[in-house]
Amino acid sequence: MDDKRPTGWDTRAEAVSFFGFTDFPTVKRRGSIVLTHGEGPYVFDTEGNRYLDANSGLWNMVAGFDHPGLISAAQDAYARFPGYHAFFGRMSDQTVMLSERLIELAPFERGRVFYTNSGSEANDTLVKMLWFLGRAEGKPERKKILTRKNGYHGVTVVSASMTGKPYNEVFGLPLPGFVHLTCPHYWREGMAGESEAEFTQRLARELEETIAAEGADTIAAFVAEPVLGAGGVVPPPEGYFQAIQPILKRHGIPLVSDEVICGFGRTGTIWGCDTYGVVPDAIISSKALTAGFFPMGAVILGPELADRMQAAAEAIEEFPHGFTASGHPVGCAIALAAIDLIVEGGLIDKVREGAPRLEAKLAEVADRPNIGELRGIGYMWALEAVADKATKAPFPSELSVSERIANACTDEGLICRPLGQSIVLCPAFTLTDAEMDEMCAKLSTALDKVFAEVA
Amino acid sequence: MDDKRPTGWDTRAEAVSFFGFTDFPTVKRRGSIVLTHGEGPYVFDTEGNRYLDANSGLWNMVAGFDHPGLISAAQDAYARFPGYHAFFGRMSDQTVMLSERLIELAPFERGRVFYTNSGSEANDTLVKMLWFLGRAEGKPERKKILTRKNGYHGVTVVSASMTGKPYNEVFGLPLPGFVHLTCPHYWREGMAGESEAEFTQRLARELEETIAAEGADTIAAFVAEPVLGAGGVVPPPEGYFQAIQPILKRHGIPLVSDEVICGFGRTGTIWGCDTYGVVPDAIISSKALTAGFFPMGAVILGPELADRMQAAAEAIEEFPHGFTASGHPVGCAIALAAIDLIVEGGLIDKVREGAPRLEAKLAEVADRPNIGELRGIGYMWALEAVADKATKAPFPSELSVSERIANACTDEGLICRPLGQSIVLCPAFTLTDAEMDEMCAKLSTALDKVFAEVA
Repeated sequence: MDDKRPTGWDTRAEAVSFFGFTDFPTVKRRGSIVLTHGEGPYVFDTEGNRYLDANSGLWNMVAGFDHPGLISAAQDAYARFPGYHAFFGRMSDQTVMLSERLIELAPFERGRVFYTNSGSEANDTLVKMLWFLGRAEGKPERKKILTRKNGYHGVTVVSASMTGKPYNEVFGLPLPGFVHLTCPHYWREGMAGESEAEFTQRLARELEETIAAEGADTIAAFVAEPVLGAGGVVPPPEGYFQAIQPILKRHGIPLVSDEVICGFGRTGTIWGCDTYGVVPDAIISSKALTAGFFPMGAVILGPELADRMQAAAEAIEEFPHGFTASGHPVGCAIALAAIDLIVEGGLIDKVREGAPRLEAKLAEVADRPNIGELRGIGYMWALEAVADKATKAPFPSELSVSERIANACTDEGLICRPLGQSIVLCPAFTLTDAEMDEMCAKLSTALDKVFAEVA
Repeated sequence: MDDKRPTGWDTRAEAVSFFGFTDFPTVKRRGSIVLTHGEGPYVFDTEGNRYLDANSGLWNMVAGFDHPGLISAAQDAYARFPGYHAFFGRMSDQTVMLSERLIELAPFERGRVFYTNSGSEANDTLVKMLWFLGRAEGKPERKKILTRKNGYHGVTVVSASMTGKPYNEVFGLPLPGFVHLTCPHYWREGMAGESEAEFTQRLARELEETIAAEGADTIAAFVAEPVLGAGGVVPPPEGYFQAIQPILKRHGIPLVSDEVICGFGRTGTIWGCDTYGVVPDAIISSKALTAGFFPMGAVILGPELADRMQAAAEAIEEFPHGFTASGHPVGCAIALAAIDLIVEGGLIDKVREGAPRLEAKLAEVADRPNIGELRGIGYMWALEAVADKATKAPFPSELSVSERIANACTDEGLICRPLGQSIVLCPAFTLTDAEMDEMCAKLSTALDKVFAEVA
């Protein structure tokens, strides 16, 4: 059943592409999929197949694949000013307006925005900013970055070093000075008899001990996703940010919220940090910022970091950093439209209102002997497969269970993402009840099929 | 005369922006400039001022700021498929077609393409690929990257480490293992009595000695712009690539051509490496690839690197790298249209035909006692200011001569870029003779004004 290689586009794609984040055995057996267009949350391939994309692209196509308002906004922006940069004290009016909007929405009274083309570049830029600040403030050793295991922060050498995934070992990463703390995943990392609150306290102690061991003066920042995304959708344990922020503050270490996935509604609030009641020192944004219609990232500095950075930069007359398409007028115009749609246009309300129904439906799907945990919030969820629910023992990795489930979903016309032994669901915010039902039904079919084979 | 701060948009811009690559004293004195739209090679600010942008944005807006064909291509692409990724063996048909086109145009019989959102990300990706390959092939120590002083390769921590600019010291960069050879600039670096051919031979010897000193087995690649761009437009000395490529081949070190600026016509051929008769092992592309209409970069691997990378990736089942907007369908559709316009639509012919006239006009502009060198090729040129033409002595840096010239140009309605003590001109390929004349006349006026003040 797995040998359904089409001909034509897939072989063309494979001849000229070097695939990233792609399971080569799957492509060898099943061929690649070449897509032509979308309708709402569905995408269509060159063979005429339709797929409900339960990942909304890569968490980013939150308004679906053909939102008329966003298409118009993009088309109008091209007609008006199809490209400029933000160097040399020049930038487009759209760029200024977007920065004002971002500061207005951020949990800061004021701040400053720096644009990039991706979340990876935004995290890489943040690290450069902090290294610059350390040297400017006479603390050149203040360079280390604390993140968490399974935290995902990007793929440039530095943002991959921040990422706490074991696969980065194939590049010889992380670089020195990137320290990964325990993944804040109670179900997997909690010890026998340990309550969730005790687990949080243990993570707080680990942070305190790590700071002591590394030296507070050597640490430039603690960077965290409010909910770990590509680490398998891991909401923080009870009281997590309330436990760690005072420790960071006491040591003068900025808390940076990586909102690439959570930002703009995924958790039901504008920022993930709003959901968890914490005000960070800076925000990293991307993905839903443009609803996936344009590559864009942003570093949003809160008042204290903004002031210190500005003073440091003025002291040497220039901050020598910037990307050619930083603050691109089309991207900024699209982002303004996407933010309006999310914040005032009802998309964020849809997440807030739809989340309980989604959770209930997924709880039914998860009510299977080989699903160990359903976890998530808002419109980001994961179901983790286990060989044994009681012991939480995973399936043997050579069974490639999550990859099999994802492929079985594809056969059903549903795209969802295997991550570790979990299946991730992060649909468009525009999802209708019928589409939600379709997603859950197809996933159930796929799970039954695969568990019948492997369990 | 320098106190012409407008009010309104500039103060709004300054309140919310953290400016990159911007001279803060200039912004303090003159205010920032907020742009609204463009016409051909001109851009307009919120005060109604019109500027001829002699830098075509940042080398990238090669078809001007309102090309109707490219605007239509972008608008059509948004109507068709406004976003997808290239992960998990899926990608858009536009992505496949662009890869085919890039391989067809590259000086390779075959190869593979990996997309990024910028030249910085493309160079960062290249380094990750080479580190991955070294480990996969049992040579984990093969990590060092050779580049040249004043070579510019981007601003991520790794691409900034490749960049041979002293300003990166403010970040504590370069990282270890990034080795910068002599800038191949005969006029500035040639020794007394040394011919250009002898200078080239000296650079070749330096490469040979560097490889010996570092150890050939520790070097992953030599990466070079055919013509240094942001290093001040430096064409290579006579026979440069012919002298160095055999050395690299003998030691099994790939030669990578960073074509971010040169690629797609800037030097009068599709690639800068075509102009200099060298076939590299991989190409880095960005900027003109989309005529500045969309953030995009690409790593184009030639056959040998493509085969080795593919084998290494298949051996571990996955190459764990990729950006959310890698191979974005809109960006790929725009790139296909931009490449058609440049290659078949006559833009590259305009560069080839216009270059002698541009050189002749700039030679008149450069015929001033305080211009030490006019250098360039195609539609990329620099005029370097000197206090003394005979000794090539620069002006004292506190005079900020090139910044003054750029500001005097702005007053004339001409945007050009100060780089070191040079002024860079890299206009759109669509430039008419009248626009070329206007550019040269305004630059002359600005030079006379500034040299009257400082010389």
